[in-house]
Amino acid sequence: MKAIVLKDLENLNYEEIDNQSIEGFVKIKIKASALNHRDVWISKGQYAGIKFPMVLGSDGVGFDDQGKKVIINPGLNWGSNEAFQSKSYQILGLPNFGTFSDSCWVAPTQIYDFPTHLDDVSAAALPSAGVTAYRSLFSRAKVKPTDKVLISGVGGGVALFAMQFAIALGCDVYVTSGHEWKIEKAISMGAKGGKNYKSDSYVKEFQSEVGGFDVIVDSAGGDGFSNLVKLANPGGRIVFYGGTNGNLNINPQMVFWKQLSILGSTMGSDHDFAEMLAFVNQYKIVPVVDSIFELKDFKAAFDKMNKGEQFGKIVFRNS
Amino acid sequence: MKAIVLKDLENLNYEEIDNQSIEGFVKIKIKASALNHRDVWISKGQYAGIKFPMVLGSDGVGFDDQGKKVIINPGLNWGSNEAFQSKSYQILGLPNFGTFSDSCWVAPTQIYDFPTHLDDVSAAALPSAGVTAYRSLFSRAKVKPTDKVLISGVGGGVALFAMQFAIALGCDVYVTSGHEWKIEKAISMGAKGGKNYKSDSYVKEFQSEVGGFDVIVDSAGGDGFSNLVKLANPGGRIVFYGGTNGNLNINPQMVFWKQLSILGSTMGSDHDFAEMLAFVNQYKIVPVVDSIFELKDFKAAFDKMNKGEQFGKIVFRNS
Repeated sequence: MKAIVLKDLENLNYEEIDNQSIEGFVKIKIKASALNHRDVWISKGQYAGIKFPMVLGSDGVGFDDQGKKVIINPGLNWGSNEAFQSKSYQILGLPNFGTFSDSCWVAPTQIYDFPTHLDDVSAAALPSAGVTAYRSLFSRAKVKPTDKVLISGVGGGVALFAMQFAIALGCDVYVTSGHEWKIEKAISMGAKGGKNYKSDSYVKEFQSEVGGFDVIVDSAGGDGFSNLVKLANPGGRIVFYGGTNGNLNINPQMVFWKQLSILGSTMGSDHDFAEMLAFVNQYKIVPVVDSIFELKDFKAAFDKMNKGEQFGKIVFRNS
Repeated sequence: MKAIVLKDLENLNYEEIDNQSIEGFVKIKIKASALNHRDVWISKGQYAGIKFPMVLGSDGVGFDDQGKKVIINPGLNWGSNEAFQSKSYQILGLPNFGTFSDSCWVAPTQIYDFPTHLDDVSAAALPSAGVTAYRSLFSRAKVKPTDKVLISGVGGGVALFAMQFAIALGCDVYVTSGHEWKIEKAISMGAKGGKNYKSDSYVKEFQSEVGGFDVIVDSAGGDGFSNLVKLANPGGRIVFYGGTNGNLNINPQMVFWKQLSILGSTMGSDHDFAEMLAFVNQYKIVPVVDSIFELKDFKAAFDKMNKGEQFGKIVFRNS
């Protein structure tokens, strides 16, 4: 098969590699796959347990050995506790060969019905980002239709799903971004408003225009996290699934007086994945696809993600 | 009546002051009251909305106008949402005159049945610290009997109640303190073990001896909070009701990968207070009293709290 193969940290190539069959697993003929930050980090060696050679890719859709179209849950062995993943939990694309390939072997438990309102490319955008957004919003922050929701850094895959899910639920949703054009796009998709987090006055503007937020979804962390604590309503939940800007700096008095909950979340259980798919089917959510590449052009796709200029998911389509 | 009166920030005296009767409220003849950090902070002007003159004191027990012995819930107007207190929420001792007095006027909703297994002095130690510990552990961290629990800074009123409640529930409870003698006292009360947080190796020692903790109760915050994040088990809940050491510094990756919840909590609702009393009655919890003073000797009591040398509550007994 041909795949995006990480041979070592110097060599990421689109090339032939022997298939990795696993007993009891099912071979999926991949039709489309999607890029995640995780793939970029693994390719740079910024991930635990890297093995060579490795076929990258966590997200994919395709046909199973019966010719049925399926969507793959990238998570395997979550375990029996909904609250956290077991020690044997793994994500497709390390240590098992991933989806940036003609085909991929997955456990039967990873195979779910394809969401029929979607095409291959948009469905491939869903798994990792969709389940991360779903768990963050629903399982962790327990969002309700009456909540005011703030999504920081809109444009990334998870942030966009979180925005779409909260809008579908009926929440008033606001966004932040460092790019005005991303805020405008979010508003065109149903967000009530947005602010540029680079502006010194964005917190005060939100406070005077919106008040505060009941649920905040973040992946930046860093010094800016203190602004999110300021913007949280009493009883508010701030959930985060990333921390690209480094350590959180938090005023404890503000958190305990407002009875805030600061919740870490990553990926999701099999239950979260099934619930996410059901939600996407019920509300006919269509993932936002930023751009489509062929696997052979993977370098351009990785570059695009590195620059952070995308709005939505970067997808690979197999011919 | 005679009371501990804050006339201004220079003058805290035990002296005569006119009673403050409030329409619809009930006059309680105070038999015992207990000191909280809040009283000390108010006396230093470190609290919002200070008015003069003010009678301090949030915790008290005594006799109502029917001669029935009662315990006072210091919280008033929590509001309808269990998740957070309303804007009109107030705590006895500001703006309403408090319990460091012969008598005190409270709303009928603040009056609860006296816990009959306790004497006046130990019951007076219960209200603020007890409800804060109860809400932190049960309403916020949702502690279960199978949880391993860590209480930081044992010796303070809330920390001791949190320890006693978790032990009564059946949890394995561990403690930290900066004083070896406090750790020994905690172990004599049923804690499984403890570490001096001033030791550089305390985190590693806990990790090798205990593993990690499912629930951690803290009131210090500051740089040491990062050690609590390290010590939390996957799915763990770190709840805090104070932050005397300043801002929290938190590694976001550790929090989201372990699916941790960092929860602020302060005081408690009427429901929390009633549940706390029911728990104390069911398990015959006896509050730890550090020392007993007369109101006229309040300066010695305030000094003791300022030094942080107490183990348990500092109580005033009226003759």
